[in-house]
Amino acid sequence: MLRIYSKNLLISMMCQKRLPHQTFKRYNNSNSSGSSWKILRLNHIAIASKTIEESSTLYKDKFRMETSDKHAQPDHGVNTMFVDCGNTKIELLDPITDCKSPIENFLDKNPTGGIHHLCFEVDNLDAACLDLRQRGLRLLSDRPKIGAHGKPVIFCHPKDCSGVLIELEQA
Amino acid sequence: MLRIYSKNLLISMMCQKRLPHQTFKRYNNSNSSGSSWKILRLNHIAIASKTIEESSTLYKDKFRMETSDKHAQPDHGVNTMFVDCGNTKIELLDPITDCKSPIENFLDKNPTGGIHHLCFEVDNLDAACLDLRQRGLRLLSDRPKIGAHGKPVIFCHPKDCSGVLIELEQA
Repeated sequence: MLRIYSKNLLISMMCQKRLPHQTFKRYNNSNSSGSSWKILRLNHIAIASKTIEESSTLYKDKFRMETSDKHAQPDHGVNTMFVDCGNTKIELLDPITDCKSPIENFLDKNPTGGIHHLCFEVDNLDAACLDLRQRGLRLLSDRPKIGAHGKPVIFCHPKDCSGVLIELEQA
Repeated sequence: MLRIYSKNLLISMMCQKRLPHQTFKRYNNSNSSGSSWKILRLNHIAIASKTIEESSTLYKDKFRMETSDKHAQPDHGVNTMFVDCGNTKIELLDPITDCKSPIENFLDKNPTGGIHHLCFEVDNLDAACLDLRQRGLRLLSDRPKIGAHGKPVIFCHPKDCSGVLIELEQA
């Protein structure tokens, strides 16, 4: 199939060099529910801090990366700003002060801020939920909810993910 | 320029939809040293845990993602295993027990594991070090060292990066 490449994509692909120990294999092709789903890509890394004005300085002014505008998500209790990393995005988060924010506890424990969660896109979120529950992975809600990007999402319990909070988003 | 696309790359590109508030702009095109450098892409997210056997279960068996073999890096005091996320990689880390490991302190503070650092590729690491120091960003060593992938790397102080440990790697 023939397509036209952008310069950024070419740079991105040329940088995907792999060392000999980075040859990848899939060890398990079956799933317990018989339904088919897969992880497509990393959508974003969410970084929470007290103010986006402070956290965005690094990416905007020091690293000179491209950033979006700050956007209020009152239904989710956070403001967001995205940073373009070339192959994925960083989602900077800060709490909306007059809302109950889901990142308040995190910021109490991590006052200087830190990585709040990783978000992976999946091709079939309902099948993923069914399959992962059958494999004993705890999900943080009974069913997917509409996330800050307007798509169904669900979170996996960090205790089942080596201490990492993982969001799965319907692609 | 005409090239042949792989199925995975096509899926990855089709998934790069952007919401209206995700329009990106670069706010600062100058750098203080007059030298030119830029961040090219996210190379990997490093996740540390007590054993890779435990942390890899999620990615290998539950998410059924492609993984590399486990690889000892005695000079760096860690074992590594990579997980292919489509557009980037996760680097699973565990400590080599008879070495002084740089992730020991992290695991003492985070016994269930967690995200240890993010690694970005840059096109000119020496220029980046000079420029970032002049902008007041603290780097954790005087000059770049050869990292676990055989390339020059340097770490930025997490206190200057909203609590996130950031590695910059020469592409």
